[in-house]
Amino acid sequence: MRICIYPGTFDPVTNGHLDLIKRGLTLFDRMIIAVSEDNYKANLFNQAQRVEIMKEVTKGFPRLEVEGFSGLLMDFCAEKGAVAVIRGLRAVSDFEYEMQMALMNNKLNPDVEMVYLMTGQKYSFISSSIIKNVAQLGGDIHDLVPAIANEKIIEKYRR
Amino acid sequence: MRICIYPGTFDPVTNGHLDLIKRGLTLFDRMIIAVSEDNYKANLFNQAQRVEIMKEVTKGFPRLEVEGFSGLLMDFCAEKGAVAVIRGLRAVSDFEYEMQMALMNNKLNPDVEMVYLMTGQKYSFISSSIIKNVAQLGGDIHDLVPAIANEKIIEKYRR
Amino acid sequence: MRICIYPGTFDPVTNGHLDLIKRGLTLFDRMIIAVSEDNYKANLFNQAQRVEIMKEVTKGFPRLEVEGFSGLLMDFCAEKGAVAVIRGLRAVSDFEYEMQMALMNNKLNPDVEMVYLMTGQKYSFISSSIIKNVAQLGGDIHDLVPAIANEKIIEKYRR
Amino acid sequence: MRICIYPGTFDPVTNGHLDLIKRGLTLFDRMIIAVSEDNYKANLFNQAQRVEIMKEVTKGFPRLEVEGFSGLLMDFCAEKGAVAVIRGLRAVSDFEYEMQMALMNNKLNPDVEMVYLMTGQKYSFISSSIIKNVAQLGGDIHDLVPAIANEKIIEKYRR
Amino acid sequence: MRICIYPGTFDPVTNGHLDLIKRGLTLFDRMIIAVSEDNYKANLFNQAQRVEIMKEVTKGFPRLEVEGFSGLLMDFCAEKGAVAVIRGLRAVSDFEYEMQMALMNNKLNPDVEMVYLMTGQKYSFISSSIIKNVAQLGGDIHDLVPAIANEKIIEKYRR
Amino acid sequence: MRICIYPGTFDPVTNGHLDLIKRGLTLFDRMIIAVSEDNYKANLFNQAQRVEIMKEVTKGFPRLEVEGFSGLLMDFCAEKGAVAVIRGLRAVSDFEYEMQMALMNNKLNPDVEMVYLMTGQKYSFISSSIIKNVAQLGGDIHDLVPAIANEKIIEKYRR
Repeated sequence: MRICIYPGTFDPVTNGHLDLIKRGLTLFDRMIIAVSEDNYKANLFNQAQRVEIMKEVTKGFPRLEVEGFSGLLMDFCAEKGAVAVIRGLRAVSDFEYEMQMALMNNKLNPDVEMVYLMTGQKYSFISSSIIKNVAQLGGDIHDLVPAIANEKIIEKYRR
Repeated sequence: MRICIYPGTFDPVTNGHLDLIKRGLTLFDRMIIAVSEDNYKANLFNQAQRVEIMKEVTKGFPRLEVEGFSGLLMDFCAEKGAVAVIRGLRAVSDFEYEMQMALMNNKLNPDVEMVYLMTGQKYSFISSSIIKNVAQLGGDIHDLVPAIANEKIIEKYRR
Repeated sequence: MRICIYPGTFDPVTNGHLDLIKRGLTLFDRMIIAVSEDNYKANLFNQAQRVEIMKEVTKGFPRLEVEGFSGLLMDFCAEKGAVAVIRGLRAVSDFEYEMQMALMNNKLNPDVEMVYLMTGQKYSFISSSIIKNVAQLGGDIHDLVPAIANEKIIEKYRR
Repeated sequence: MRICIYPGTFDPVTNGHLDLIKRGLTLFDRMIIAVSEDNYKANLFNQAQRVEIMKEVTKGFPRLEVEGFSGLLMDFCAEKGAVAVIRGLRAVSDFEYEMQMALMNNKLNPDVEMVYLMTGQKYSFISSSIIKNVAQLGGDIHDLVPAIANEKIIEKYRR
Repeated sequence: MRICIYPGTFDPVTNGHLDLIKRGLTLFDRMIIAVSEDNYKANLFNQAQRVEIMKEVTKGFPRLEVEGFSGLLMDFCAEKGAVAVIRGLRAVSDFEYEMQMALMNNKLNPDVEMVYLMTGQKYSFISSSIIKNVAQLGGDIHDLVPAIANEKIIEKYRR
Repeated sequence: MRICIYPGTFDPVTNGHLDLIKRGLTLFDRMIIAVSEDNYKANLFNQAQRVEIMKEVTKGFPRLEVEGFSGLLMDFCAEKGAVAVIRGLRAVSDFEYEMQMALMNNKLNPDVEMVYLMTGQKYSFISSSIIKNVAQLGGDIHDLVPAIANEKIIEKYRR
C-alpha cells in the first residue's frame, strides 16, 4: 500500500486544492492531508479550524485522512510510512521554491519522493492569499472555494 | 495495478534518466519507458538503437518494460491502461513547456495524470543535448551516462 | 482615431488569437491584423493562405482590417499611422522575448507603444505550434481553433 | 471616450511611473491615477500625502485625474466607467503576479482589460522600494524620482 | 592589487558561502567579507556574533578580512578601494534581484563591478533561511554549515 | 598574473560585448577573446572574418588578445593558463543556460571559474541575433554595434 501526504496551510482550502486531492487519490492507495500548524499571525483560521473545515470539505472521500501536523514534514512522512508528498505547481516562483525544498527534503529523508502535479487550468490563478485579499475587500469568491469554506470566510470578515 | 509511462527521446539515456526511472518505480506498480520515434535529423541514435540501449541499461529492473512509440502520448497511455506519465523537471524553462503540455494532455485525455519529479541534485546539469555537445568535442562523459551508452557514443563519434 | 496593429504569423490562427482580437477592439478605434510573411519552411500555410483564413475568421468584425506585411514592424506602424502594437503574453519565456523586442522597437520608433494583454485562462496552453504538433499526430483540435482553420488544417494533413 | 485607471501605491512616485503615465495618455482619452490606501506600516507617505505629491508631479498634464481609492480595483473601474487598467512590467516576478491578478480581475469584472506596458529601459531598475532603501542609507536618488518627491523624501529621512 | 568585497548577512554562514569565498579568493588579490548590520528582527545572530563566527570559520584563510558594515555598499567599496563585489547566484529569483541591484549600484558607483559566481551544485539548495527553518524544527544541518556555525545554531535553538 | 577568457560567437560583435570587454579588463591582468568556430549555417561572418573584425574593434586595448578557437572551452582555458571565463547575463533564459554550462564546465575543469557580469542597462536588449534580424529588414543599427561591424553588416546585406 502506497501512502502519500498532501501538506499545506489550507488557509482557506480552495477549489484548486480540492482538484489536487481528487487527482492525487487516483495515484495512491491512501492520502493523508497534513494541515500545518499556525506560524503566521496572518492566518485567517487557526489549525484546529483549518483541520475541521478540510474534514467537512472532504467528507465521504475514500481512502483519505485529515490531520494537523507540526515539525519536519519528512519526520511526519516517516511516522506515517508515506512514500510520497504531493504538491501543486502553478507558477515559476512556486517551482523554484519547490525545487529547493525537494532537494532539502531528499537530504533529510531520501526514501520519500516529492511528487508534483500541475494545477488545473481553471484554478491556476487561485491562491489562498489572493482569495483572502479579495474576500476582505468584499469580492465574491463563492465559486473559488468549497461552500463550507466560503461561509466561514464571510462569517470571519463580517465580524 | 497502477501503470505509469516514462516517455522521452533518450538520445542518449543519461544517469539523470536512470535516477528518475528508479524513483518512479517506487511510486507505481509498473513502468513503461516509451522511447519516441525519430523526428529530428539531429538524433544521434535511431529509435531502434535507443530502445535497445535502454533495454540493456535497465536489464534486471523489476516491473519495467521498454517500448518504442509514435503518435499521441495520450493515445499510447489509453492503449496501455496507464494512469500517469512521469516527467523530470530541472529548470524554469522545462517547467513552462511541461505546464503547457500538461494542460494540452489533460484536454486530450483527462484520465491520465502528468506527474513531475525534480531532477536529483547530482543530475541537474545533465541533459542529453549538452552531453552530445561535450562528447562531440572530445570531452569525457563516462560518469554522466550509463556505461553502455558511453561506449555507443564514443563509437559513434569515432567514425 | 487610434489605430493598433496586431502582428503575428497566425499559422494557424487559434481561439486564443481570436479572443485577443476581440479584447483589443474594445481598446482601440481600429485594428489592423498584420500577417507576417513566410520565413520558415515549417509554415503550414503560406502568407496568402493565412491572410485569407484570417479574413474569413474575422468576417463581420467591425473596425478591423487584415493585411499581409513584410519588413520592419515599426515601419509598417508608421505607414499605417498606428499608435500601438498589441501582443499577447502567456508565459515567462514570452515575456522575456517581448521585453527585448519592446526595447528594440522603442529605439526604432519611439512613437509606437507595445501594448500587452494576458492571454485568457482558457487559452493559456494553446499555441500555434502545439496545435500543429497535435493535429499532425491525429489529435482533435476542433475546439482550439476557429472552424475554418480546423477544416484547412485537417485538409492539409490528410494530403 | 475610453478611460483608463493607473493604480499603484506610488510610495514614492518614480520617474518610471511618470514615464508610464505619459505613454498611457497617448493610448486613452482620459486617465485616472488611483492611489491605493495605506495597508502597510512600511509606507513612507500616507495616502493623502501620496495623492498630493502625485497631483503636484502631474500638474498641467491634460486629461488626467488623481484620486485615492480603497476597496476592489474592479469596483473602482466600474464606478468610473473605465475600460482598462494600465500596469508596468519590469521583470519575470512582476509578470507572474500580474498574470494571477489579471485572471482574478477578469473573473471579478470581465468588462475591464488589464493592459501592460514594458517599463522603459532607463527605468527598469527603479522600484519604489529600492529607492526607499537607497535614500534611507543616504544615497542620491534625485534623478530617479520627480523633484518634488525627492524633496519630500529627503525631508522625511532627515527627521 | 585588486580588492573584492563579499557582502552578506551570513545568518548563518553556510557551506555554500564558504565555497564562494574560496573560489572568489582565486580571482582577486584580497577579499573583504562585509557582514551587514541587523535590519530584521528575524536575525538569528546579531552583527557582532555574525562577524565573530565568520572570523572563526575563515581563520587561516590568506588575503582575507572580515568586517561589519552599515550604509551603502558602494560607499563601503569606495572607502576600501575595492574594484569588485562578489555575489552568488542560485536561482532565477536571485538573478532578477541581483540584476536590479547591479544596475542601481552601477548608477551609484560605476567604478565597481558586480561579479557573479554560480553557486556550486552541492550547495544549490542551501540558503540561510531554509537552514534556519530546518534547524528550528530539529532537523540535522551539520553537513550544510561549518562546524562552528552548527554549534552556535544548536545552542541558540536549545535555549 | 590572472588571465581570463571571453568566449563568444560575436556574429556580429555588439556595443554590449564591447562594454563587457572594457569592464572585464578592469578585473583581470590579461584577457583573451576566444572567437568560436563556425557551427551554424546562420552565421553572418565566418570565423576568420569575426576574428578580424574583433581585432579591429579592440585595436589599442591593452592586455588583450583575440584568437579563434575550436573544441572544448575548458581545454582552451587549460592551454592558455586562464583562471576564469567571463560571460554576460541579460535575461532569465541566459541565466538557466549559463547555470547548466557552469556546472558542466566545473566538472570538466574545476580550476577555472565562470564569472558573470550583468549586461549594462543600455545594452540589455541588444543581442547579435536581434541585430541581424533588424539589419536584414533594413533597420538602422549603427549605434548598437561598433562602426567597423556596422559597415561590414551593411556590405553583407547589400549583396
